[in-house]
Amino acid sequence: MREAYHEELAAISDGLVEMTRTVASAMERATSALLEADLALANAVIGDDRSVDRLHHDLEDRAIALLARQQPVATELRIVVTALRISAEIERSGDLARHIAELARMRYPSCALPTDLQATIGDMGALAQQLMSQAADVIASRNIENAVCLERADDQMNQLHRAVFEQLRESTWHHGIESAVDVALTARYYERFADHAASVARRVVYLVTGRHNDQPSDLLALAR
Amino acid sequence: MREAYHEELAAISDGLVEMTRTVASAMERATSALLEADLALANAVIGDDRSVDRLHHDLEDRAIALLARQQPVATELRIVVTALRISAEIERSGDLARHIAELARMRYPSCALPTDLQATIGDMGALAQQLMSQAADVIASRNIENAVCLERADDQMNQLHRAVFEQLRESTWHHGIESAVDVALTARYYERFADHAASVARRVVYLVTGRHNDQPSDLLALAR
Repeated sequence: MREAYHEELAAISDGLVEMTRTVASAMERATSALLEADLALANAVIGDDRSVDRLHHDLEDRAIALLARQQPVATELRIVVTALRISAEIERSGDLARHIAELARMRYPSCALPTDLQATIGDMGALAQQLMSQAADVIASRNIENAVCLERADDQMNQLHRAVFEQLRESTWHHGIESAVDVALTARYYERFADHAASVARRVVYLVTGRHNDQPSDLLALAR
Repeated sequence: MREAYHEELAAISDGLVEMTRTVASAMERATSALLEADLALANAVIGDDRSVDRLHHDLEDRAIALLARQQPVATELRIVVTALRISAEIERSGDLARHIAELARMRYPSCALPTDLQATIGDMGALAQQLMSQAADVIASRNIENAVCLERADDQMNQLHRAVFEQLRESTWHHGIESAVDVALTARYYERFADHAASVARRVVYLVTGRHNDQPSDLLALAR
């Protein structure tokens, strides 16, 4: 009985890591679709989001079944509750990757981004993919120091977000209204995506330490 | 023991309703701050978001404590799990109200919105507040028909969202880039807020029926 229990817990954790890696990859592909105005790839990302939704529902059902059958307490209870929360965050993150693919599709055959923004948006896409991959690693390892690093990398995303909004000032923007709105929303999707990755890290910290804490430096002190 | 248990469950549900009403009210006040360029009100909304975060953490801690102490099964387990999920959605909704207040503060003493957009944004704000209040009622009553109505009202928000983006077309927009970006992001905040309210309704439906279902018509069939 106990063995089956720990297998179920491990399966939930593995499912979460798989789902998180799937969403990291979806964001990478959505970014390519956006930068290269690749309609087939955009459609693939949009279609694949349903499989993320299914993974999310499966994980929820399994977590609730485990709570009912095994009635975990202490750390194991926190693992299951955290898995439920993280699963919801990752599902929302998948929606954000889909939104970027939808924008690529809506503007096809044009590229939704002006040439001089493509490098920055490319950086945001690469960072988003990297942060979500790191979130998957943090879920798998429950390593608090890595979780804190993830929070810091989220600051990099905020800097890129600000850089995009600098370019959106009246005096320097020559690409029209529609493009400004596309760029602003795209930047926001990446920023939210990174925020979800950081939030996953915070939830893992809460799992390990039992403390809600939004101060990375305090978390690092806890980890030492 | 059983009596204490049901009191705890009721307290969690009451806390959730309170938190949801607080966030509905925050969105109403944020909308007033935006439309009237009211700095004091904007600052109040921004400050009050911390109390929503505290309510969220308290609810989480109480739900986890209840899971550990009482080890609920079946419906009661689902109530607690649903409360955890809804609490996270409402916390995010509170952030969106704060974002709108932050925009009002950033553009003060100007109004962030062009005059000809104020009526539509006012409608979005009123609908957002109404949907979140309805979500609070649905949490309290677990009434599936009301939950389905909430989903339909979410369609109204999508219509308003599209109407705003119609006005953001090149040929008709005369308010500059910064204003276009402000309006696009604001519309998006309201749309996300309404989406959270609808998602709360879906979670209550899942609680009552045990089915994940995104088709309102199917839900209504279930309710009958």
